[in-house]
Amino acid sequence: MVDIATRVHNHKWKIDPIVRSLIDTDFYKLLMCQSVFRNRADTQVTFSLINRSTHVPLAKMIDEGELREQLDHVRSLSLSRGESTWMRGNMFYGKRQMFRPDFMEWFEALRLPPYHLERRGDQYELTFEGSWPEVMLWEIPALSILMELRGRAVLDTMGKFELQILYARAMTKLWEKIERLRGLEDLRISDFGTRRRHSFLWQDWCVQAMIEGLGDKFVGTSNCLIAMRDDLEAVGTNAHELPMVYSALAEDDAALARAPYDVLADWHEEHSGNLRIILPDTYGTAGFLRNAPDWLAGWTGIRIDSGDPATGAETAINWWKSRGEDPRDKLVIFSDGLDVAKIEELHQQFAGRIKVSFGWGTLLTNDFRGLVPGDALAPFSLVCKAQSANGRPTVKLSDNPEKAMGPASEIARYKRVFEVGEQDRMAVEV
Amino acid sequence: MVDIATRVHNHKWKIDPIVRSLIDTDFYKLLMCQSVFRNRADTQVTFSLINRSTHVPLAKMIDEGELREQLDHVRSLSLSRGESTWMRGNMFYGKRQMFRPDFMEWFEALRLPPYHLERRGDQYELTFEGSWPEVMLWEIPALSILMELRGRAVLDTMGKFELQILYARAMTKLWEKIERLRGLEDLRISDFGTRRRHSFLWQDWCVQAMIEGLGDKFVGTSNCLIAMRDDLEAVGTNAHELPMVYSALAEDDAALARAPYDVLADWHEEHSGNLRIILPDTYGTAGFLRNAPDWLAGWTGIRIDSGDPATGAETAINWWKSRGEDPRDKLVIFSDGLDVAKIEELHQQFAGRIKVSFGWGTLLTNDFRGLVPGDALAPFSLVCKAQSANGRPTVKLSDNPEKAMGPASEIARYKRVFEVGEQDRMAVEV
Repeated sequence: MVDIATRVHNHKWKIDPIVRSLIDTDFYKLLMCQSVFRNRADTQVTFSLINRSTHVPLAKMIDEGELREQLDHVRSLSLSRGESTWMRGNMFYGKRQMFRPDFMEWFEALRLPPYHLERRGDQYELTFEGSWPEVMLWEIPALSILMELRGRAVLDTMGKFELQILYARAMTKLWEKIERLRGLEDLRISDFGTRRRHSFLWQDWCVQAMIEGLGDKFVGTSNCLIAMRDDLEAVGTNAHELPMVYSALAEDDAALARAPYDVLADWHEEHSGNLRIILPDTYGTAGFLRNAPDWLAGWTGIRIDSGDPATGAETAINWWKSRGEDPRDKLVIFSDGLDVAKIEELHQQFAGRIKVSFGWGTLLTNDFRGLVPGDALAPFSLVCKAQSANGRPTVKLSDNPEKAMGPASEIARYKRVFEVGEQDRMAVEV
Repeated sequence: MVDIATRVHNHKWKIDPIVRSLIDTDFYKLLMCQSVFRNRADTQVTFSLINRSTHVPLAKMIDEGELREQLDHVRSLSLSRGESTWMRGNMFYGKRQMFRPDFMEWFEALRLPPYHLERRGDQYELTFEGSWPEVMLWEIPALSILMELRGRAVLDTMGKFELQILYARAMTKLWEKIERLRGLEDLRISDFGTRRRHSFLWQDWCVQAMIEGLGDKFVGTSNCLIAMRDDLEAVGTNAHELPMVYSALAEDDAALARAPYDVLADWHEEHSGNLRIILPDTYGTAGFLRNAPDWLAGWTGIRIDSGDPATGAETAINWWKSRGEDPRDKLVIFSDGLDVAKIEELHQQFAGRIKVSFGWGTLLTNDFRGLVPGDALAPFSLVCKAQSANGRPTVKLSDNPEKAMGPASEIARYKRVFEVGEQDRMAVEV
């Protein structure tokens, strides 16, 4: 087992680069990448990093040279032979050859495209431009690099034993959460914490602790490298970038209204079973479900990623009932800002009524809250999103206006097209 | 840095034997051994292990074969070249060549003598017989083996992550103590925890944490191997076995009354400065000081190892005053059952009035209280004492009748000779 505190103490980034593999990323990125590669490979996109926690002055904390080194290192990575074999030969969601030969050939030859980095006041402006299937792969490494470099800036000031105690406390904290989760009957939970993790080594420790502590209740990790190394299920389905880009490309309001369903129609062709999970909140869950075609009600489940999760799940249950589906056959995946108390609450409210699964992210892999003075290691809200597609701005509304993004005029247009009314504001912490 | 949890998880005793060197022992044992080698080498003694915590059924918990393996391993040890060089050349208490060439030659050739092991009900009877300078060196290894084998029996049942969390919690616990101690101005504290430590690796971790956490306030360790490896002061002076054996050898009551002072007269010849520390409680502190020769009042200080420590220190202060000495020039070393609260209390009561130093033992190197169910890793009270010398029984009274040992008739005789009256009983935990 890795002695994380010592490695951190001694760390040389060449030994412990923040991102060590092209598959040190979320599984759904690879699934979506293949889908984009197949259906929209020529789309030109811009992705940008956005620090929603403006009180964290990233450019003051992180040296630009170090940031460039880490980003350059990611550009030097290519798929290793073992990684390629795993992607080509492993069974994902019960299916072999999930990744088709043409995609794998392209991926094997891939290097990530250039990045644009500029300091703007106390923040960095970090953007990626190019073809969608290439640029989209920057999201997860960019986020984990920024999050970890900010952590390293704090850790660098600490002594060897302070570090040992820091990790001792963080380990104890996670273990106490796991002991609580162990009490939930029929729990199904997975690691969704790659993007805002404390570090790779720490995420790996957290995953191994979940394996020992939860046994069968722990069903997998979204991190492909960890899934490969630890012989775990790689899990994840799809994300907002698909409807965001499809919508930006829509020629008129009618095409815009159809776009989120076009995404899922493409997905429907490619995937079945537990990969047929609706992500309904990009432009408001209520309207999305109201106007959804009937074939979508036949999908396996839904992922709730913004808004009040219990409300979202009740909305889904009512929708399934209204479409003649039995909610007990349906899967609801909760994945937004989870921690143990919320997991317990949702589990209690929904177990037995629907199939429930949890994608536990930042507060699994980066709960260093309260462990250093000034809470300087607390995770914060950093995202990397599609900003434009073929020159047109993208828009996201979600079920929480705090998470909305895009030009004001376009937000207004999307709200009209998608019939989005008043929304409840919820603080976004991670 | 060693990943202790993993080493424990994987431990093979051949890789991590409990005692790994003849100098993995207390410094005062070596000092006393040289003194005995010089003055009483021919004395035949019996040392016995005594478990004062009879509720801990050692023989049920510890496999006899494993115990023999560990004891046999100690018998296979001899002084290494580097260890010999360190003992011959290092400066101890400001003095070079503390260990004389004749003693070193003897020590370099030494193997520990045989042991006698028998199971008696739920306890082991473990005794050592032979010449005093050889047998006395069994005390510390015998104690640390029994203590650690009992711990290993508990650890063996734990999973890899349970172990990680156990050590994470123990580390955090110690660090929080160190953070409290850091607040005590002019604190002087050293590690006296070899004999009842959780394990060698753990003791070494504790010492390193003290170095980082306390800086100059941490003045050394009694463990010679750790002192050598970590470049620390090896500390310690003398123990009860000297007056116990000298007293057993006394031909009549008058010689018995003199014996404890004869010990210190021999010591006076050999040592100066901070090694002139009185251990007054073997047959009651009050009587010892009352009848002490004046030259003893000129010694550097006193070590309080039983009874109420504040009372003991006040007794010493009054005694020094009555002999015309200034207590502010004198050193009081507290070494009995210390933990942080007691250290803070004694420091507050005595700082400025005398020089104060703390020898922190079991609750530094083995505070696993409350960390596993049934408190199965809590330290307990195990000692290894001289039982007889040249066929005569030894006696210890101390300032706490719970710590008294010897045949009842002899205890009565000693109480009479040393004018010991009623004593306060105090629970002995470690």
